[in-house]
Amino acid sequence: MKPTTEQQLPHHLRQRIRQGDISSNTSGMAPGYVQCNLVVVPAQFAADFQSFCEQNPKPCPLLAHSLAPGDPSLPSLGADIDVRRDLPRYRRWELGHAVNEPDNLMDAWQDDHVAFALGCSFSFEEALLNAGLEIRHLSEDVNVPMYRTSLRCHSAGPFAATMVVSMRPMSPADAIEAIQISSHFPSVHGAPIHFGDPQAIGIANVDTPDFGDRVTVNKGEVPVFWACGVTPQVALEQAKLPLAFTHSPGCMLITDKTNKELSLD
Amino acid sequence: MKPTTEQQLPHHLRQRIRQGDISSNTSGMAPGYVQCNLVVVPAQFAADFQSFCEQNPKPCPLLAHSLAPGDPSLPSLGADIDVRRDLPRYRRWELGHAVNEPDNLMDAWQDDHVAFALGCSFSFEEALLNAGLEIRHLSEDVNVPMYRTSLRCHSAGPFAATMVVSMRPMSPADAIEAIQISSHFPSVHGAPIHFGDPQAIGIANVDTPDFGDRVTVNKGEVPVFWACGVTPQVALEQAKLPLAFTHSPGCMLITDKTNKELSLD
Repeated sequence: MKPTTEQQLPHHLRQRIRQGDISSNTSGMAPGYVQCNLVVVPAQFAADFQSFCEQNPKPCPLLAHSLAPGDPSLPSLGADIDVRRDLPRYRRWELGHAVNEPDNLMDAWQDDHVAFALGCSFSFEEALLNAGLEIRHLSEDVNVPMYRTSLRCHSAGPFAATMVVSMRPMSPADAIEAIQISSHFPSVHGAPIHFGDPQAIGIANVDTPDFGDRVTVNKGEVPVFWACGVTPQVALEQAKLPLAFTHSPGCMLITDKTNKELSLD
Repeated sequence: MKPTTEQQLPHHLRQRIRQGDISSNTSGMAPGYVQCNLVVVPAQFAADFQSFCEQNPKPCPLLAHSLAPGDPSLPSLGADIDVRRDLPRYRRWELGHAVNEPDNLMDAWQDDHVAFALGCSFSFEEALLNAGLEIRHLSEDVNVPMYRTSLRCHSAGPFAATMVVSMRPMSPADAIEAIQISSHFPSVHGAPIHFGDPQAIGIANVDTPDFGDRVTVNKGEVPVFWACGVTPQVALEQAKLPLAFTHSPGCMLITDKTNKELSLD
């Protein structure tokens, strides 16, 4: 899967987002290219947040961060990237609460802000689709179901969280293939962390996700659970920083890096 | 894991087997080296048997075969190999029935016999152990439990079979790791073919294996099923050849090829 037109290329999409022409979910845009979760924290918390990511690479696969406080570029992901305005929608956090969803961070950005870009499941989902596997929430055209679990992440400074996971129901044979494929993408959550009994990881009922939407689980299928990029948002809830920003769910940073570059193959 | 003494090297063990000094199961011998299942059929059935293996690579991973009818060497697996006397025990098949278990094939070998060496699970089990995973039948010091399934293999000439699988119970997290590791060894059965509900693949009860021994399945564990090298013996039952030979279960051909050479890593 590759963009077939100039309009589908990452830098072009970023320009249109920057100009306010695109304000929607970026799912399915720039096929073949990596999209990222964004977290912005004040410099005094940056080392702890980086440590939190490094200790919890499955939910928080760190792909890039600001070269210096206040620097909104991420050149390793795209020469022209400006994290203040290249995402369609952001989420502003104050004292652990999401307070609003601005279109850009131009006014809010401060000279001590540090941006972190984390891998997202869109990359391995593309590889699963390319292998002919069905991804239920895509078939049903809803958001992936996500759940809070009892799996405790390693803490770093004020950052602590139990892991959030996403779920994709599959037959055992498809799950075995999906495990093999996603394990080749360690920088975008990698292999699943669990399958089968939801209660074993503290999920009471797969039909009532904490985030996203319910999907159908057919007879003979098992729920397969991957570490999820919503986990850092739970860490922000716990950390209660005076100010922080993330992307708004589904409104990701589209980068120039290809999914193929992230694969171990 | 590597042999620490000259006595543990494959060519030395083959010499001792050939001299009749070793007549036991070869499990655990020559750590780090590939052991093989053996199948010997008359030349008129060799092309069909090769086709059967090639069409069913998970249960029948073909590693080597005779260069010509009557040739008992397999130089790609070891310069000095003589398949007529380098295994501790053989099984003689007549019209689909195992009739006895000779110590060697020196008298029985005919100038139209063709030998096939197939990968065996010892190789990926070593990799699982090296990763710190528990293999229940090894912990409990019994043979791996094996089951006839309803999974139909592709047929070739007189060779037809439903797949035989081996089972190792694991926690979901360990199963995910085992899937990743064993997938790197496609020439020794590769990734599992199923996990969870045994009845989905035609197994009535995991506590009553068709071959090998029962093992404990703890609460929270799922049975994980791999394609098994006993499958070609089922194909021999079906094919009802006038004469054929295999290794006796557990009494394998120890080769000079290392497990590492078989890994995709």
